[in-house]
Amino acid sequence: MREFELIERLRGRLAEAGAAAGRRVAVPTGDDAAVIEHGTTAVSVDAVVEGVHFTRATTSLEAVGRKALAAALSDLAAVGAGPGEALVALGVSPDLDEGDCDDLLDGLVGGAREWSVALVGGDVVAAPALFVSVTVLGPLEGAAVTRAGAGPGDILAVTGALGSAAAGLAVLERPELAAAVPDGIAKALRERQRRPVPLLDAGRALAAAGATAMIDLSDGIAGDAKHLARESGARIVVELERLPLAEGAREVASAAGRDPVDLAVSGGEDYELLVCLPPEELSAAVEALGRVGTALTAIGAVEDGPPGVELREADGRTREATGYDQLGG
Amino acid sequence: MREFELIERLRGRLAEAGAAAGRRVAVPTGDDAAVIEHGTTAVSVDAVVEGVHFTRATTSLEAVGRKALAAALSDLAAVGAGPGEALVALGVSPDLDEGDCDDLLDGLVGGAREWSVALVGGDVVAAPALFVSVTVLGPLEGAAVTRAGAGPGDILAVTGALGSAAAGLAVLERPELAAAVPDGIAKALRERQRRPVPLLDAGRALAAAGATAMIDLSDGIAGDAKHLARESGARIVVELERLPLAEGAREVASAAGRDPVDLAVSGGEDYELLVCLPPEELSAAVEALGRVGTALTAIGAVEDGPPGVELREADGRTREATGYDQLGG
Repeated sequence: MREFELIERLRGRLAEAGAAAGRRVAVPTGDDAAVIEHGTTAVSVDAVVEGVHFTRATTSLEAVGRKALAAALSDLAAVGAGPGEALVALGVSPDLDEGDCDDLLDGLVGGAREWSVALVGGDVVAAPALFVSVTVLGPLEGAAVTRAGAGPGDILAVTGALGSAAAGLAVLERPELAAAVPDGIAKALRERQRRPVPLLDAGRALAAAGATAMIDLSDGIAGDAKHLARESGARIVVELERLPLAEGAREVASAAGRDPVDLAVSGGEDYELLVCLPPEELSAAVEALGRVGTALTAIGAVEDGPPGVELREADGRTREATGYDQLGG
Repeated sequence: MREFELIERLRGRLAEAGAAAGRRVAVPTGDDAAVIEHGTTAVSVDAVVEGVHFTRATTSLEAVGRKALAAALSDLAAVGAGPGEALVALGVSPDLDEGDCDDLLDGLVGGAREWSVALVGGDVVAAPALFVSVTVLGPLEGAAVTRAGAGPGDILAVTGALGSAAAGLAVLERPELAAAVPDGIAKALRERQRRPVPLLDAGRALAAAGATAMIDLSDGIAGDAKHLARESGARIVVELERLPLAEGAREVASAAGRDPVDLAVSGGEDYELLVCLPPEELSAAVEALGRVGTALTAIGAVEDGPPGVELREADGRTREATGYDQLGG
């Protein structure tokens, strides 16, 4: 009967969160299906599994729930959609007690509140290992910004700074690396890894500013730019010396014996947005993002040539991407 | 890299299925988020886990994928929504090979095609045990039929026949029980357990016929009627001798030393619809369901009295429900 109790608990928390945020919700969770008054809507699903995507040794269950929602919402940001609704399936492992489940739900409900998402559905099942599967729906005001619209002449730009999540994970896994940076920065890096924020405002601002293609950085620029290149049939050139490195990422990478640029290129989970824009729209986009508190840095271009991604060094040579290296993430 | 190959495989299959069925799909899967041109939409999520909800000893992975989708769609049927879109998160355990993954996808894609659902999103993650989490979205033409609308005077009715899934599971787990019925019937019971069909047409027909409250039977009438009673604040009386038992369910139950009525009351996974209707709408509803090939049987009523469920024997006595007994399901 434990499963039923947990469903009740989830349902109660969902009802709370749904009632708080559900502008489009006609029938909230608790019935067979929730009902949403939709216009054009973007949808995405993301799942995380204990031992694969996270470990309780380095992160709280509150952070796990919050981050699972953030990662799913980041996909909405990457098409220019706003926050709408979420449905959550929880696989609950036998070792989770009531307090653990509450922590997990705290993270989901807290994130939903913070990012104006209505939790409209849930399922709780027993499972050998904890998993959280989050489906998100978000309203689109204009056309979606897909991965397929990049063309030669476009500027390539990225929001925020890179490498913080990978550096944060390194510090979490090897606490001695924290000595490489001031305490406040080590803390910020750890927080960035554990508590990413979906760039929903920035995504909408970039869509409105004329973005031709966009993707969120979950695997690192090298891998994610490949998706843009493939879907757009375009040649994407990343000027490595222009990559905005997160504060402290360089020092942590060096202490770990790694190339800092590599951390930015291949480190995952930054959840920044990689975007292609016509050059004449760049300054307006930078300004629009400034208004929502997000930096935008031009880091390359879409060039003529065979489709693919070129990571270009300052001296013009091309660096091989080292693949989807997430330092364990 | 295995996860990426599987994502590609899933993506390819999703694209296939999405292109086939996606009337409302503006941007198909393969981007950060799919985009749907929505009206009012019902949404629900359902997850199944190996070792908890199924075992490969008695069911194929094709049937697992298909059934996961069917169970999720059954929730849409229960609010009167039609088929729309689905998003799938797969947790892939290390022992699954390529053929196994294809089997699972065959079930999902085959079900999607059969039930006119566009698969618009997916995530594939490594997991210690196989899980399938399915989120479904479906268009609503009128108001949703919730669990909360039942009132005194309503007729209680159920679609199809009960106990087949529980009898089928008994036959799968104890093959000697099959001797109690002709081969064809044993086969039908097993198929019913492994390959349930979501009653999307029946759900819409019941909504159009004026259903006041509705739920799908996933846990058995005793448990599911309680949800109706609680949400409606109503007293629901089930006349046990009127329950339509599935062909062969009585014989299998007897061979297993169980009360056949108990199988119908407490056996889960029938995915029939339990519905409340004003008495004057019943004959039209029976007729409308006949047109989509589904039987509808009046089995009780909503009566005045304290909220709850009463399972009434032919002699007027009340039977205690034995709880959520799913015979292992």
